[in-house]
Amino acid sequence: RWTHVLAGLVAGTGAVLAYSLHHHKAQQTETAIEKRSALPVFTQEEVTSHRSLEDGVWVTYRGGVYDITEFVAVHPGGDKILLAAGGALEPFWSLYAVHNQEHVLEILSEYKVGELSAEDLKKQRSVQTADPYSSDPVRHPGLRVNSLKPFNAEPPSEILSDSYITPSAIFFKRNHLPVPRVDPGSYRLQVEGLPGGALALTLEDLKTKFPKHTVTATLQCAGNRRSEMNEVKQVKGLNWGIAAISNATWGGAKLRDVLLAAGYRPEVATWARHVQFEGLDRDASGTYGASIPINKAVSEDGDVLLAYEMNGEDLPADHGYPLRVVVPGTVGARNVKWVGRITVSAEESGSHWQQNDYKGFSPGTDWDTVDYKSAPAIQELPVQSAITSPADGAAVEGSSQEVTVRGYAWSGGGREVVRVDVSLDGGKTWQVARLEGGQDQAPPPPGRAWAWKLWELQAPLPPGAQELEIVCKAVDSSYNVQPDSVLPIWNLRGVLSNAWHRVRVKVRED
Amino acid sequence: RWTHVLAGLVAGTGAVLAYSLHHHKAQQTETAIEKRSALPVFTQEEVTSHRSLEDGVWVTYRGGVYDITEFVAVHPGGDKILLAAGGALEPFWSLYAVHNQEHVLEILSEYKVGELSAEDLKKQRSVQTADPYSSDPVRHPGLRVNSLKPFNAEPPSEILSDSYITPSAIFFKRNHLPVPRVDPGSYRLQVEGLPGGALALTLEDLKTKFPKHTVTATLQCAGNRRSEMNEVKQVKGLNWGIAAISNATWGGAKLRDVLLAAGYRPEVATWARHVQFEGLDRDASGTYGASIPINKAVSEDGDVLLAYEMNGEDLPADHGYPLRVVVPGTVGARNVKWVGRITVSAEESGSHWQQNDYKGFSPGTDWDTVDYKSAPAIQELPVQSAITSPADGAAVEGSSQEVTVRGYAWSGGGREVVRVDVSLDGGKTWQVARLEGGQDQAPPPPGRAWAWKLWELQAPLPPGAQELEIVCKAVDSSYNVQPDSVLPIWNLRGVLSNAWHRVRVKVRED
Repeated sequence: RWTHVLAGLVAGTGAVLAYSLHHHKAQQTETAIEKRSALPVFTQEEVTSHRSLEDGVWVTYRGGVYDITEFVAVHPGGDKILLAAGGALEPFWSLYAVHNQEHVLEILSEYKVGELSAEDLKKQRSVQTADPYSSDPVRHPGLRVNSLKPFNAEPPSEILSDSYITPSAIFFKRNHLPVPRVDPGSYRLQVEGLPGGALALTLEDLKTKFPKHTVTATLQCAGNRRSEMNEVKQVKGLNWGIAAISNATWGGAKLRDVLLAAGYRPEVATWARHVQFEGLDRDASGTYGASIPINKAVSEDGDVLLAYEMNGEDLPADHGYPLRVVVPGTVGARNVKWVGRITVSAEESGSHWQQNDYKGFSPGTDWDTVDYKSAPAIQELPVQSAITSPADGAAVEGSSQEVTVRGYAWSGGGREVVRVDVSLDGGKTWQVARLEGGQDQAPPPPGRAWAWKLWELQAPLPPGAQELEIVCKAVDSSYNVQPDSVLPIWNLRGVLSNAWHRVRVKVRED
Repeated sequence: RWTHVLAGLVAGTGAVLAYSLHHHKAQQTETAIEKRSALPVFTQEEVTSHRSLEDGVWVTYRGGVYDITEFVAVHPGGDKILLAAGGALEPFWSLYAVHNQEHVLEILSEYKVGELSAEDLKKQRSVQTADPYSSDPVRHPGLRVNSLKPFNAEPPSEILSDSYITPSAIFFKRNHLPVPRVDPGSYRLQVEGLPGGALALTLEDLKTKFPKHTVTATLQCAGNRRSEMNEVKQVKGLNWGIAAISNATWGGAKLRDVLLAAGYRPEVATWARHVQFEGLDRDASGTYGASIPINKAVSEDGDVLLAYEMNGEDLPADHGYPLRVVVPGTVGARNVKWVGRITVSAEESGSHWQQNDYKGFSPGTDWDTVDYKSAPAIQELPVQSAITSPADGAAVEGSSQEVTVRGYAWSGGGREVVRVDVSLDGGKTWQVARLEGGQDQAPPPPGRAWAWKLWELQAPLPPGAQELEIVCKAVDSSYNVQPDSVLPIWNLRGVLSNAWHRVRVKVRED
């Protein structure tokens, strides 16, 4: 049974990250939780005998013993909590640092059933737990950090549209687990599931046996602009601003070429439907994983890369060194970093992130009614845009008589942004912004516009205006548009937040 | 110069059809316009000497002489008006019957400069003008007619979602010109622009030399739901309701196969960008024409057909007999009927309908500022849905305690509809509808969902409600959504009308 439960584990980091947004008063609760109580004292052996739903699920935390059997079903991270069954929570909470919050400790305290014997507590404390994040790379100090462990951060939105190509150092970072340190010499990419048997490729193979392609592609996190959903009604997930999106030039082998070398033939398409990717980032329950439809993977126009370069240099550690998948036009979550294994399959990836996360739901769906099987895994993203300047709450000079509004716009699936409308009066009247693509690039063929457009509007200040409500909305080549408002697209995980973007600025009198 | 102007003519039927929506009082205006005035009398020869912008543009109508030089620039049908320069308007207005409206006669009357001599008027009237629409087929009496000449009609929306496959007789009809009567025996499809030289195929060739494919695909007019845009601010174009959309099973040869037989090779893609289609429907200035991107035309997954069958029978005359193009996922206007010529080209079709119509613009763009070159020709359409039952203004029985809402949903580009949200309270709360695809069809591969979904929601009547504002909105597989409201997507031609659909129904007391 225990083996069965373990085998069925899904790694719920994404949902675990969800644990609310409150930080204050954590210290007081911590003090309370360490206080010895009049509850029974248990030995480690007694605790360890409770590690299944049948026998009860007990854990220890700072000397307390907790019976969390009832909590397993509602744990945002799913069954993964069973990894800690019968033992200490500390090693796991150091991996998923999001647990270190008052809110979480409050929940835990409700399940307290006893104290760990002083002797066993002493033993436990003598085992120093290493920080699994200790080898994470140094990051740019300008990044706005949403979560340190795992590291998730976005560039300041004011500088996001300063350059068409986002410098790698400030490119948004979205890690689900500690950054794996991969030795490029011993690295092997496993390619499996094709008639020719498995293929193992060195980094050198990938660089020399396949033509190098470069693709400028924008990546966006499914949770970009989640904070705007949180403002109307709370959701679970990292509280991203408008900058969980960035644009880079990626260099590498085409996934198509590698699959052909590994034995892909048109006949394979009769049974294969998906290409699965596994990262080398892992925790006790397995690796990060995702998949994409096989037609995207093998199409000449799909431009899917196994990238070893970002902006002309080796991939940085945070972006997947030595190799990552770049799936242009597709949600960031499928662009698997530190990719170690590729499997052609009839099935989607069974990973938590493919099956039970990164999906969209109706605003009426809540955590009691959600059925993850009822929605498709997010692949292509919808049309998006946001205002990077002026910032919300900024002031413009009334004497300048003109206001300059700047931002970005992008759409998934290779659909080019063809127009951005900007309003200075909250959406009543609209002006068309000037679009900027890459400097030296020819217009992309239809369906292969992978990179964003930056845009700018210079417009006269409306006479007498004391405040402007600036709004933007983009249109893509399929003439899809952004929805007007947030609530009707609100969803419990706060993904796909692409309503019109609004900022309010004051007009400063002379 | 005159030759030059003629050569530059574009056939503005679409825009000509625009002439407003008013029908009443036409009779009075007609009487007024035929009254002889005290204005100078001109001979036909004098009128004929004014047929260019330099010499002035004069026309006659029912014995009156009109100097329309100033009007040429603002004619909704563009330069096409010059076809009538120096002569009578009647032969052209019988072709574009939309002119027969009070509004048009009022405009014309402003330009009156004289009377045609009695002798020349007598001559003119002795030339009987044949009705170019006299050979149009008989249509189903249940259709809701938007325009008789050319024929444009939609099925009653109440029956639109009664069957997944729309019966051909009530499939919406959108003709730009008279229906050509084509002899299947002498019919030839010309295929041009490829290295192998031109190819001419008989109907028999198309049926026997190429595998027959069937594709169930929904076609939608760019102007579907235009009437909702008219309600917020007037636009130009046929006042379509919600039913300028229908679903059929098409049978024919794959365009890809025909292009390969005509000499298409991958090298062609280095210079070719578009595949142009010309219809056999024509007027004095040329044929109907349109084009699609070449990657859509040659892709195995594009499923573009040269269809000779609709719902298992020969194409009906109104739907392109003997051969039409079916471009799944793409706006109706590119699904050229009665196709006579296919040209592989570096250029888009130069036709009026590709260059100066069927494009989307910002709500702030008006007829004075519109630049047709600034917007791409509509190809893939955005996500769409509408409520077919109950009808707006209908009543539901309060005693039934339940309301059943039905409708359709579809998206362009092969993006499958994955969810339809329905609200009974104007958009405050949402429930998820049950989707119905075709009965006996496997789920389509990603990116090849060409057919609509019908949907249904059975929901409890909100207790005490006296009126319901029912709203629907669809989500496609790229998680694109419909915009909340009409005004922000309003555009001067009234295309791409895909805001949430709303109907109000009364709850009838027992």
